Amino acid sequence: MINQETIVALATPSGAGAIAIIRMSGRDAITIASEVFQSVSGKDITTQKSHTIHLGTLVDGTKIYDQVLLSIFKNPNSYTGENVIEISCHGSTFIQQQIIQLLLRKGCRMAQAGEFTLRAFLNGKLDLSQAEAVADLISSDNEASHQIAMQQMRGGFSNELSKLREELLNFASLIELELDFAEEDVAFADRTQFNDLLNRIDFVLKRLIDSFAVGNVIKNGIPVAIVGEPNVGKSTLLNALLNEERAIVSEIAGTTRDTIEDELVIGGIGFRFIDTAGIRETKDVIESIGIKKTFEKIEQAQVVLFLVDGSVSLSAVEVLKVEIEKIKNQYPLKPLVIVINKIDQLNSDEITTITSQLITHNSKLIALSAKNKTGIDTLKNQLLSFVNTGALRNNETIITNTRHYDSLLKALEEISKVKYGIETNLPSDLMAIDIRQALYYFGEITGEVTNDELLGNIFANFCIGK
Amino acid sequence: MINQETIVALATPSGAGAIAIIRMSGRDAITIASEVFQSVSGKDITTQKSHTIHLGTLVDGTKIYDQVLLSIFKNPNSYTGENVIEISCHGSTFIQQQIIQLLLRKGCRMAQAGEFTLRAFLNGKLDLSQAEAVADLISSDNEASHQIAMQQMRGGFSNELSKLREELLNFASLIELELDFAEEDVAFADRTQFNDLLNRIDFVLKRLIDSFAVGNVIKNGIPVAIVGEPNVGKSTLLNALLNEERAIVSEIAGTTRDTIEDELVIGGIGFRFIDTAGIRETKDVIESIGIKKTFEKIEQAQVVLFLVDGSVSLSAVEVLKVEIEKIKNQYPLKPLVIVINKIDQLNSDEITTITSQLITHNSKLIALSAKNKTGIDTLKNQLLSFVNTGALRNNETIITNTRHYDSLLKALEEISKVKYGIETNLPSDLMAIDIRQALYYFGEITGEVTNDELLGNIFANFCIGK
Repeated sequence: MINQETIVALATPSGAGAIAIIRMSGRDAITIASEVFQSVSGKDITTQKSHTIHLGTLVDGTKIYDQVLLSIFKNPNSYTGENVIEISCHGSTFIQQQIIQLLLRKGCRMAQAGEFTLRAFLNGKLDLSQAEAVADLISSDNEASHQIAMQQMRGGFSNELSKLREELLNFASLIELELDFAEEDVAFADRTQFNDLLNRIDFVLKRLIDSFAVGNVIKNGIPVAIVGEPNVGKSTLLNALLNEERAIVSEIAGTTRDTIEDELVIGGIGFRFIDTAGIRETKDVIESIGIKKTFEKIEQAQVVLFLVDGSVSLSAVEVLKVEIEKIKNQYPLKPLVIVINKIDQLNSDEITTITSQLITHNSKLIALSAKNKTGIDTLKNQLLSFVNTGALRNNETIITNTRHYDSLLKALEEISKVKYGIETNLPSDLMAIDIRQALYYFGEITGEVTNDELLGNIFANFCIGK
Repeated sequence: MINQETIVALATPSGAGAIAIIRMSGRDAITIASEVFQSVSGKDITTQKSHTIHLGTLVDGTKIYDQVLLSIFKNPNSYTGENVIEISCHGSTFIQQQIIQLLLRKGCRMAQAGEFTLRAFLNGKLDLSQAEAVADLISSDNEASHQIAMQQMRGGFSNELSKLREELLNFASLIELELDFAEEDVAFADRTQFNDLLNRIDFVLKRLIDSFAVGNVIKNGIPVAIVGEPNVGKSTLLNALLNEERAIVSEIAGTTRDTIEDELVIGGIGFRFIDTAGIRETKDVIESIGIKKTFEKIEQAQVVLFLVDGSVSLSAVEVLKVEIEKIKNQYPLKPLVIVINKIDQLNSDEITTITSQLITHNSKLIALSAKNKTGIDTLKNQLLSFVNTGALRNNETIITNTRHYDSLLKALEEISKVKYGIETNLPSDLMAIDIRQALYYFGEITGEVTNDELLGNIFANFCIGK
């Protein structure tokens, strides 16, 4: 299916750089390019092979636009499955605009967000979950989310689901066949085999659904609340954690990213320190308003760091112990780490004293000096240990997409109905409806079942040019 | 000359986009790529042709980095003249960093600013002025500076200079030959022909030197001072000028540039409104401090707009007339436009009155309403008319680079000495020194004469990846 319209967009990040890539896709991409491209070798690009690169100038009449490299990809061997031209031009924003405007005048239209990938999906180059993984891959900013997106883009769980869907479709056909012979009371579908398949599906769906909790925090960063009174050293601690990681990033000049305050990548996992400014304001945490604000932060977090100034008086420690107890009573299941800071100001006896005061059987305690960067690695390892990365390390499939999660939940519900139907000897015709519904939700994930609104929603989140 | 070291850098703008290009250049570029690239077709990329594109994955051991397109350019048919690999990867900053770090581990080193273009120059793919034009091309943000950079990159004035340099070199050899026969008093170099050549060189140099004034303002934007009392409508006027131009830019989603306040492109020419905030502060311009500040702005400008609120009283007009006279006395040669704003608040009689009050024989006057956007086009045309764009339209060569300008001035000085030498029958040996010196300055421009410091200065201004 080759789209009639040829679309064009800037494919590289906006702004000035050494080079920029402008991409065209559609039936007339090569013809349109040939109208404005003069190869230095004098070759006619419409007769050139796919996957070849040509040096030349972009011209319109007597006006010279740029010296460019032009790459040819011929239908169906391209990203979109259509004819694709990529123009590698000098990276001035002015030139980019000029060239895009030239191509618009020559009959292209501006691509919509995600339209290249949409076409790739419509032309069968990718299934829907793979297409979604492309967007995830582009927005991935740490090792874990990158690996998950890569795995999904290369097939990942959609292959597994597709196989199960096919088996289920088989049984569905057999059960629907039974309907044609309803009076004869035959069972074409082996109920034991069918039950076995349903159990396998049930197992896979539950595993994928469970993985969402991990996948979601990995994709978006694990939310960590740092609570504690002002001046306990939160900023110093964040900087101590951050600085080492920043050094890695800044090794590569020219790749500097905008600093997102209070976001860290530790051991390939993203951590997100949530709205910590608000906590900093909370002068007196045991006041009811203070506690409420603190609890709001903790509510959103997966991990709580309770930061304590190690040099406080013993009476202050008593107050802190009350605070910690309140938090633990309210959130018994949320991992809490008591972090004693400023141990550089204490001798070893004092460290022992405050540690023994604050330690309890059901929370972790780490003593460190953010200023001197001692104990930082211990804290990092502690944070990492809260993440269930077993699945990651074992290359297991992880769901990160809310849409997939929803469809999986619905599919599981339908599968449960079918299982119950077998147990209760439900008539085939009623069971067939549930199976069809389960198949529908399977198909939603990979895109066998789709509609314009769904596609619109998915691809609107893409950047233009992808 | 193939450099031993293989360099790598991100070639596209930093940040996230649909795709990013990572570029390698050097003897081992293809070998290094082959170590980490697995073609989907199973082909060995070291045996593939130049200018071909290959789909595959970047891997290191069991770790998969990305699905990429890999473009091969073989020495000498590449930008740098060396083996070049371009990797088109998914445009996440994380992936970009990962791939660059992978290639660094495999034996590349990080490219320095402009190092790809430096290698192109050292390998004879570009002369020095063409290399400099590449940087100009990337930073060009309007039609005029783009056209000048394109022309220079495609040879431009360096071709013309090279030819003249060769002729001059010829004569230099003949004159130096005369030195060997000094006792015999022969003249191998025909003095009439030589004089003719010197005149031609003199003409070309002067033309290029003269073009610098135009080239410089075109490259950097034409500085315009808007002077006038507060609340005469400067911001409204700037917005009225700006809005229409902005509409053109925003037609292309995804190419939005950061707004540079008070910079306009009118008819392909950049205008730069200089530090107008300072003027806005100057409440009473006829006070000595006020006049001084205003004069500072005018000093830097090529064009002065004197903005007047058309609805002021006649007594205020008398004050304005004094101000205008002061400016004209101080800067008799600087184009001054009296802009009467807010004519929407006046009837036609009132417009006639204030116009006749302010008009003088040696300044332009435009009455407009910035608010209603009437008269804006007249002002635009007036601004454009101050620019000597004749040279641009006639495709004449224009110098924009201060380094070239300096070398041309020095070359002209030496040529003048040589001409004077002929007139005064200077001995050949003395004349030869001046000719050699002129040749030296010619060579500085195109890079036949160069040194590490000069190259360092030039390429340090490039971005990394170019």
